[in-house]
Amino acid sequence: MAKSPDQEHPIKAFGWAARDVSGHLSPFKFSRRATGEKDVTLKVLYCGVCHSDLHSIKNEWGGATYPMVPGHEIVGVVTEVGTQVTKFKVGDKVGVGCLVGSCNSCEDCANDLESYCPGLIFTYNDKYHDGTTTYGGYSDTMVADEHFVVAIPDNLPLDGVAPLLCAGITIYSPLRYYGLDKPGLHLGVVGLGGLGHMAVKFAKAMGLKVTVISTSPGKKEEVMDRLGADSFLVSRDQEQMKTAFETMNGIIDTVPAVHSLLPLIGLLKNHGKLVMVGIPEKPLELPAFPLLRGRKVVGGSLIGGLKETQEMVEFASKHNITADIEVIRMDYVNTAMERLLKADVKYRFVIDIGNSLMPI
Amino acid sequence: MAKSPDQEHPIKAFGWAARDVSGHLSPFKFSRRATGEKDVTLKVLYCGVCHSDLHSIKNEWGGATYPMVPGHEIVGVVTEVGTQVTKFKVGDKVGVGCLVGSCNSCEDCANDLESYCPGLIFTYNDKYHDGTTTYGGYSDTMVADEHFVVAIPDNLPLDGVAPLLCAGITIYSPLRYYGLDKPGLHLGVVGLGGLGHMAVKFAKAMGLKVTVISTSPGKKEEVMDRLGADSFLVSRDQEQMKTAFETMNGIIDTVPAVHSLLPLIGLLKNHGKLVMVGIPEKPLELPAFPLLRGRKVVGGSLIGGLKETQEMVEFASKHNITADIEVIRMDYVNTAMERLLKADVKYRFVIDIGNSLMPI
Repeated sequence: MAKSPDQEHPIKAFGWAARDVSGHLSPFKFSRRATGEKDVTLKVLYCGVCHSDLHSIKNEWGGATYPMVPGHEIVGVVTEVGTQVTKFKVGDKVGVGCLVGSCNSCEDCANDLESYCPGLIFTYNDKYHDGTTTYGGYSDTMVADEHFVVAIPDNLPLDGVAPLLCAGITIYSPLRYYGLDKPGLHLGVVGLGGLGHMAVKFAKAMGLKVTVISTSPGKKEEVMDRLGADSFLVSRDQEQMKTAFETMNGIIDTVPAVHSLLPLIGLLKNHGKLVMVGIPEKPLELPAFPLLRGRKVVGGSLIGGLKETQEMVEFASKHNITADIEVIRMDYVNTAMERLLKADVKYRFVIDIGNSLMPI
Repeated sequence: MAKSPDQEHPIKAFGWAARDVSGHLSPFKFSRRATGEKDVTLKVLYCGVCHSDLHSIKNEWGGATYPMVPGHEIVGVVTEVGTQVTKFKVGDKVGVGCLVGSCNSCEDCANDLESYCPGLIFTYNDKYHDGTTTYGGYSDTMVADEHFVVAIPDNLPLDGVAPLLCAGITIYSPLRYYGLDKPGLHLGVVGLGGLGHMAVKFAKAMGLKVTVISTSPGKKEEVMDRLGADSFLVSRDQEQMKTAFETMNGIIDTVPAVHSLLPLIGLLKNHGKLVMVGIPEKPLELPAFPLLRGRKVVGGSLIGGLKETQEMVEFASKHNITADIEVIRMDYVNTAMERLLKADVKYRFVIDIGNSLMPI
């Protein structure tokens, strides 16, 4: 007989879980595996609320298994390490992102591109190597193989660091891979949520000129003053779009809904790159001629590997980059999800797990 | 009053032109400019029949001006050179491709990427710097700035070389730009016409494994035996497509009609590149998730610059690559166009201008 979630493993754990497609989160007792030879166990202090948590708890991407403890922007402090662990010791500040495992034998694993491994194991709503369910960071403790644990530099506040583990690397990785990391290049950022605001920060730190492209004229001030973007473009304003035609070297498109690519491709200079990091549920219309005419590309990118995640955190440390966050208590999470659905947050909710997750 | 085509310039020329959207070609007298300081004048010997000639003479892409002398896969022998010409002398074998001019002041021109110059001047149905109409290679003579003239190596037959000037460079350039030129990589080629068969030849010469992807099972033998591809994939055969899933590093997609990208993206390994060189008249459906999941890209490419065209011809010379052609007489061209429309040619018609263009 299958063991219940609170019996699978010896470490007693406690968190908040969704029980069905309503996505409503409520307190939940479960267990985690004992600290293995290569494992790091941490006390969770903060966990970011990613838009994919919302999709997942409502089973909007399919494949949901309940009870589901979401959360993959996890930071905390090490409480125990396995005998073979070399990178961490008790008391270290660490993070865990979207992945807790991969096959370790494919080409992508060999190239530090674990997020593209066909056998990657997500931090929650997945099955670990031993067949047991993975549970995320809306919980008091976390156990992970040290390969999937990131060291957090001392100079960064832990709450603002949490979103770097997903939103940060999801932006940083394509900026590097697609060569959109050279000072002087002009980057467009479409969508100003958790991902978009990180794109502005990372690209500015890399020395790029950054233009935020939005449907909402009212966001101009926050984009320019608060985030430090260089310019703001209202995508519905034909005059503005015309002026900006073929001025950008790249665009990071974070919009997770169906939208028109043609005007965005038009904003790209020849040889420019439009990189999608959001996942619209239906196919988008791709006009071939503008791609050929300017040798432009439309590409995707998914999270990033662990080596690059560590590099990203160090880059953030050097440039003092953290997410703009609204810290919430655990029992506010269902309200936060409702607000997230309306994009009513600047720009990431982070749950203060350490101070507000109360055992039942 | 505007001058008529046979009065514009002092060099009397003779060719075949379309007079209206029927696209019917018939004998036509016109004129070309005198050999300028930097110009090369050539006697045209062969001219390839590109699918874009067919589109252009019927005004299917818009912008047609009649009379239109098509043809941009031109080879011949130099008969006169301007006083400032340094690269060519009378008697040299030369070629002229899709371009006869560009702005010479933009970034793309500076980077030898003239085919992306916003001021590029097409070999026919365009206006030259002096405002006069450009006429293509279905004609007895050609005058072009030496910058847009390519030297043809001695070891290649001129008739088989002609299609390299458009089809050849259109394939060679993206193979290089997208990094699909490394021995051992696996390339898919979709569509087996003028472009597709060149893709097989160039990719094989670069040391790639090449799979032709076709809707027609009957083409297997010609693809394997005649062109030397390594394998053949029937795109409608679900079993074959499943077996080939995620096995390719890149795909050159030459199909100029609306088609589904999803199965092609599926054939790509992670980080693979789907390059479109054909121009479907309507947008294609682009599914975002597979792009993100495998960090794949869909890109375009248009012809290539002059420096790279010369490099391509030299590569062809070294590897003995020419197009597979059917040589026709000038007065067969209308029939050839009908056959081209049905893809009834292996794989390029080339007009024997030198021996069959008879003056009226």
